Amino acid sequence: MTSPISSTRVTPRRPSGFPEYLPAEQLAFNKMLATVRSSYEAAGFGPIETPALELAEVLLAKGGGETEQEVFRFGKGSKDYVLHYDLTVPLARYVTEHQNDIAFPFRRSQIQKVWRAERAQKGRSREFYQCDADVVGESDVAVDGEMIALAASTMRALAVGDFVIRVNNRKILTGLYESLGVADKATGLLRIIDKLEKIGEAGVKELLTKEGLDDSQISTLLKIAELRGPVAKVTSELQELAGNNPQLVTGLEELERAIQAARACGVTETQLEIDCSIARGLDYYTSTVFETVLTDLPELGSVCSGGRFDNLAQYYTDRALPGVGISIGLTRMFDGLRDVGKLDLTAKTPSQVIILPMNDEAWSVAGKLAESLREANVACELVMAETKLPKVFTRADKLSVPYVAIIGEKELTHGKVALKDMSSGEQTEVALGDVLARIKHLH
Amino acid sequence: MTSPISSTRVTPRRPSGFPEYLPAEQLAFNKMLATVRSSYEAAGFGPIETPALELAEVLLAKGGGETEQEVFRFGKGSKDYVLHYDLTVPLARYVTEHQNDIAFPFRRSQIQKVWRAERAQKGRSREFYQCDADVVGESDVAVDGEMIALAASTMRALAVGDFVIRVNNRKILTGLYESLGVADKATGLLRIIDKLEKIGEAGVKELLTKEGLDDSQISTLLKIAELRGPVAKVTSELQELAGNNPQLVTGLEELERAIQAARACGVTETQLEIDCSIARGLDYYTSTVFETVLTDLPELGSVCSGGRFDNLAQYYTDRALPGVGISIGLTRMFDGLRDVGKLDLTAKTPSQVIILPMNDEAWSVAGKLAESLREANVACELVMAETKLPKVFTRADKLSVPYVAIIGEKELTHGKVALKDMSSGEQTEVALGDVLARIKHLH
Repeated sequence: MTSPISSTRVTPRRPSGFPEYLPAEQLAFNKMLATVRSSYEAAGFGPIETPALELAEVLLAKGGGETEQEVFRFGKGSKDYVLHYDLTVPLARYVTEHQNDIAFPFRRSQIQKVWRAERAQKGRSREFYQCDADVVGESDVAVDGEMIALAASTMRALAVGDFVIRVNNRKILTGLYESLGVADKATGLLRIIDKLEKIGEAGVKELLTKEGLDDSQISTLLKIAELRGPVAKVTSELQELAGNNPQLVTGLEELERAIQAARACGVTETQLEIDCSIARGLDYYTSTVFETVLTDLPELGSVCSGGRFDNLAQYYTDRALPGVGISIGLTRMFDGLRDVGKLDLTAKTPSQVIILPMNDEAWSVAGKLAESLREANVACELVMAETKLPKVFTRADKLSVPYVAIIGEKELTHGKVALKDMSSGEQTEVALGDVLARIKHLH
Repeated sequence: MTSPISSTRVTPRRPSGFPEYLPAEQLAFNKMLATVRSSYEAAGFGPIETPALELAEVLLAKGGGETEQEVFRFGKGSKDYVLHYDLTVPLARYVTEHQNDIAFPFRRSQIQKVWRAERAQKGRSREFYQCDADVVGESDVAVDGEMIALAASTMRALAVGDFVIRVNNRKILTGLYESLGVADKATGLLRIIDKLEKIGEAGVKELLTKEGLDDSQISTLLKIAELRGPVAKVTSELQELAGNNPQLVTGLEELERAIQAARACGVTETQLEIDCSIARGLDYYTSTVFETVLTDLPELGSVCSGGRFDNLAQYYTDRALPGVGISIGLTRMFDGLRDVGKLDLTAKTPSQVIILPMNDEAWSVAGKLAESLREANVACELVMAETKLPKVFTRADKLSVPYVAIIGEKELTHGKVALKDMSSGEQTEVALGDVLARIKHLH
């Protein structure tokens, strides 16, 4: 019956790029995850989940070398599977597949792990959580303002300190590119400009020169990219630049409407900037684009990004599905905050109390006490196994559990509990019915 | 700039065996998921998550043909990956890898999707949630009683109707097998007995005959397997059968201690039965084993199962890690309840209110109203896009949103809201500051 002990042990290890948390980290991470979920749902974004595995022909319908190299893809039987690498393509598939069963505008939130086969490096896990919210089937950019406000209220709820949301509109950029006569190269050029923060001005200049741009064109592009700052200031600078290019004029109007809506939805002046360098690498964005940077941790890059798309599901349907979405890279933000010591990782267990019945006769009283505490949302650990008192104290210390409640023969007789406050070391006799109040009072 | 529209569309579809929920289902599912999470954490089981992908050589260290056929396994570069097919083997790997950073007994909960490459069939998705809780590093079977109680309290919290937890101890079975002289075949025989409910008595008899058992042995085995019912009755029958076989005597003692502990932790008499047919197919169980059946939906099989193991991580370490765990197959239970109409799927969005500012001037008032409702845990959808009133009413109807709050020019002037109760159709003027109270009162 007993399984034979194998003589060769395997070293327990994970593939590189697949970190996992210790319980204290996971508790803190889950708290943030729950905060994002609540924030999205409070704003009326109903949750969905899509399968981790999709068919390669469907998920990679768009084609494109970079994406294909970055996915975990494999055959099994006659099927060619891919682990989803974002939540946007699955959303496009979902919305098309279920279009007769959902109401448009479709407001959905989706919080799941995604997988990317890119080379593992610091801050770049191959498995991480994305927290997305999108409105699909709505073309008014006022909704973009609402989404920027959702980003802001979620960041506030996460209590990760000050932040700035940097907004732009891709039509402003394409308008400028048109007036420079490089509209045909716009997508490629935008991708290069997008690297400004990463590779610096010199690097960007080099890449632009390779694209065949002359010095005057490059200097105008960089001048635009460096336009950033408070909304009022940049808007007037842009208005001067706008001239008569209709794309640029439209882009500026959309940007102003989105910002006005964001303000109405509670985004403060200091939380919002225009930043004309922002283009977002993804080519499905067509209008509003934005990124969010933590004031104390700019090196993390954008922790919450988003934008508007004209056509979410063009590879699946003729139906035009415009919309706007935001995405929080929660794993990356969490890890970044942890690495600079900005997270409270004190709690190593959800338990506030460890309850120790000193003998079997005390089991039932201990069980009832545990039940009453749990009903009042006080998590507690019940020690049913025969365990010596010092061992329980050591455990409470090790796990940072604030209280130990002991029920021995004496306590059982008097309907009491010996309650030890682990931080003060003080131990007092408390009537069974008063334990909850005492803990809540002391805590 | 605008992405080119591809001329060939791909049909959006999922691989078979990978269902996904519509928002109403996902909302209900997530509620159950949150209930399980709360129940586990209230009992002091700290959460962990392990990567979806593990190295094949680690996860499949145990070997065994069945498991290897059932996993999604694939090479990528020089790596041989497997999607985890349960949460127990990853727990064994986790506990061994982090043994110096965690406190034993290690009380952990783990709620994640798992993947199995088995043939897709009704009620058998290839991707599903498992909700596990385990105590690792504790040999006293009193803890098994606590885990049975955790199963019971979680089922109560899920409000899925009456249920019975059927408990057994594998030592009782092995003891009997010893006395029948078939101890060497015990594991295989237990697997056969375990199929009693699935393939019936005749099927089991046939398989046992093939194993070389004679009629008298078979009839004894079946007699044992049919021993089930209230604890007191079966215990006395078992005591008669026990005789002097030390395994059987130990098994009975352990069973009694576990049941006594479960009772002390709040499991009622009707929620607990002894059932000697239960062996659990998994060969790592060595003592207590149990299953949970919903009284109104026995055809679902066990919705929450568990048991005690002597040696969790034998393939990774010499360190003996005994413990006990439970697992809820939440996706399967949810789908089963949905299929028989036992779930409330009315809500198609988290929103309780849709707020419609009739013009841009009303944006800011609408935004503030939304914020105040959300702070009071009333989810609401804000319609920032220019939208006609009838369209909003249609949407509220379609999504079963109980209230629509309209802020037009007149309302703006008087600091009021036109609040429409969608179920009665009644529309009343409510002062901005009274909307929350009105909604909570009416609801």
